[in-house]
Amino acid sequence: MKLIGIADTTFARYDMGASAADELKRTGTGFRIIRSTVPGIKDLPVACKKLIEEQKCDIVMALGMPGPKEKDRMCAHEASQGLIKAQLMTNTHIIEVFVHEDEADDDRTLAFLADRRSREHARNAYDMIFHPDRLAENAGRGLREGFGDAKPL
Amino acid sequence: MKLIGIADTTFARYDMGASAADELKRTGTGFRIIRSTVPGIKDLPVACKKLIEEQKCDIVMALGMPGPKEKDRMCAHEASQGLIKAQLMTNTHIIEVFVHEDEADDDRTLAFLADRRSREHARNAYDMIFHPDRLAENAGRGLREGFGDAKPL
Amino acid sequence: MKLIGIADTTFARYDMGASAADELKRTGTGFRIIRSTVPGIKDLPVACKKLIEEQKCDIVMALGMPGPKEKDRMCAHEASQGLIKAQLMTNTHIIEVFVHEDEADDDRTLAFLADRRSREHARNAYDMIFHPDRLAENAGRGLREGFGDAKPL
Amino acid sequence: MKLIGIADTTFARYDMGASAADELKRTGTGFRIIRSTVPGIKDLPVACKKLIEEQKCDIVMALGMPGPKEKDRMCAHEASQGLIKAQLMTNTHIIEVFVHEDEADDDRTLAFLADRRSREHARNAYDMIFHPDRLAENAGRGLREGFGDAKPL
Amino acid sequence: MKLIGIADTTFARYDMGASAADELKRTGTGFRIIRSTVPGIKDLPVACKKLIEEQKCDIVMALGMPGPKEKDRMCAHEASQGLIKAQLMTNTHIIEVFVHEDEADDDRTLAFLADRRSREHARNAYDMIFHPDRLAENAGRGLREGFGDAKPL
Repeated sequence: MKLIGIADTTFARYDMGASAADELKRTGTGFRIIRSTVPGIKDLPVACKKLIEEQKCDIVMALGMPGPKEKDRMCAHEASQGLIKAQLMTNTHIIEVFVHEDEADDDRTLAFLADRRSREHARNAYDMIFHPDRLAENAGRGLREGFGDAKPL
Repeated sequence: MKLIGIADTTFARYDMGASAADELKRTGTGFRIIRSTVPGIKDLPVACKKLIEEQKCDIVMALGMPGPKEKDRMCAHEASQGLIKAQLMTNTHIIEVFVHEDEADDDRTLAFLADRRSREHARNAYDMIFHPDRLAENAGRGLREGFGDAKPL
Repeated sequence: MKLIGIADTTFARYDMGASAADELKRTGTGFRIIRSTVPGIKDLPVACKKLIEEQKCDIVMALGMPGPKEKDRMCAHEASQGLIKAQLMTNTHIIEVFVHEDEADDDRTLAFLADRRSREHARNAYDMIFHPDRLAENAGRGLREGFGDAKPL
Repeated sequence: MKLIGIADTTFARYDMGASAADELKRTGTGFRIIRSTVPGIKDLPVACKKLIEEQKCDIVMALGMPGPKEKDRMCAHEASQGLIKAQLMTNTHIIEVFVHEDEADDDRTLAFLADRRSREHARNAYDMIFHPDRLAENAGRGLREGFGDAKPL
Repeated sequence: MKLIGIADTTFARYDMGASAADELKRTGTGFRIIRSTVPGIKDLPVACKKLIEEQKCDIVMALGMPGPKEKDRMCAHEASQGLIKAQLMTNTHIIEVFVHEDEADDDRTLAFLADRRSREHARNAYDMIFHPDRLAENAGRGLREGFGDAKPL
């Protein structure tokens, strides 16, 4: 039985953690989900590290929605660096799933994007612990999570 | 008995630590507050880490008011990265409560914002150690500390 | 028998890992290649660290293609810092091979660049573990990977 | 007997270390000063860490004068991050005292600023180890080192 | 017998390591030089750390020439942060000697600058292990490596 952590925020305007959890369950079995919710994305790094070290998660998804201002972009940058550091300290993957408000022009598209990116990364997280070969088969294939894939060169 | 650390600065133009401490006491019981005041926000990371490791705090609030200049924004960025690092080194949450001078147009609004953000994050800190379920219930609900909440998508 | 790790992404639009592996095999013997594919470049730091610590690689190549947007540049920056940190934590070289989409005006040139930079850095990686003297001979010679070399002053 | 470290640079255009040492002596007793001079501000983080770990300093002041160019601002940023990291690695405060050349319009004002900021931070350093209560009394009071204080809100 | 490490790159357009080594030999005795050449400046942090931990160097010089583009400036920033981190992890000084291509208008001046900065920092490195008092005497004297010194205030 593997443990998959899902860490998300009260700041986000969409329940990305629910999308991720739902998609994981549709994708396969053999795992249990442990959730943790924090105020904002800068609280995610230590939340993920605790899921790994205290809850023994085999992989963690970190979901968040940085706001549209310059200050928010800086927050996202700080959170991302913390997530990378947390991974290096634990030798465990943390899949960052961030949706920036300025990635979509209206709320409906933003909700669509938040849901879809969470789901596509949930499948990535699943594959990383159960089927790493699936990722290997897609090396250099221009895959994108959320919007459409890019064309391989 | 839990220990909640409050670290603040002499640089800030509002006694955010007092607001936080007052709100914590109104919110519940079962904890003791330990305070530490440093000159500026770049001194906060190690002050928080010492509250955690030397004073055995279960969670810490780091309160500060970065100035309005480009240089001040950089200071805030450096302080934030240090706070994230301190959390990763201790597996303990540090709630960053920063109010930027350019978030309000006049001193009165700035004081209002400093007080309210400190109080709302004090409740977050309280919930994180006593009622993590309350945060989980609000995952993806667009909560904001200080000004009004955002609309969930 | 030395172990050379190759970490790449499904995000990239060219199979740089295949180019690197092919070039390594043309360059010499005495090593075995271990591959690992992750979603994006921010997943590379811990993937490389795991190749070093769990798979015992003597050196690792980290290949990726950051997108053209400002946000992508930030991702590349975060990934690079993580790769440097992973090296410092393991005392092992990780050769970063990033090709930015805006380095070429059309897809054909971009593919050419991705292939050639991967191959030239594959030879660097090979030399670093088998012939460090070859690098020493070229100190300060203005070598470039991908496009043409620069003129020594 | 406490030990106070003073680390400064040959790059600075004012002997800030001398100002700091002089002010410390005027402020109180019960400590000994240990000095260390390095070429530039990027050499300060490890110099401070050595003062703490090898010379057993209880607190360190890191004094420097970043130049006026964009490149210099980046150096200051890198140095600041290193100083924060050094503090987190040692659980010891390092008071950063940087004076940027563009903070003053002429050399005379710059010298005044370098002297005064060094002295005011020397008193901060002294208080941090001997009278932390004095800092606590000034929480949120808008104190500034160098130029005049800001008005509390 | 002290050990001085010299780490440089094949990317640089001037053999700065040779200048540094030559100057060290003119400056004094009592040391042996150990050299290490890597592809680019981002490979320098771990190369320096290996010189310190595996080759037992007492101090290391890290020499490189970042290119003129925005991307190159970012590389230099990442390398600098890695060098500071390597120092903090080893309690050992690493003297960064970077020459940016845009610091000079023509190749001849750039070569002059690369040579002279390497030599002046070689004397700094020598003094740091054999005559720290010489640095202390020059605290706050506005010393610059490469071009002329600045005027003390």
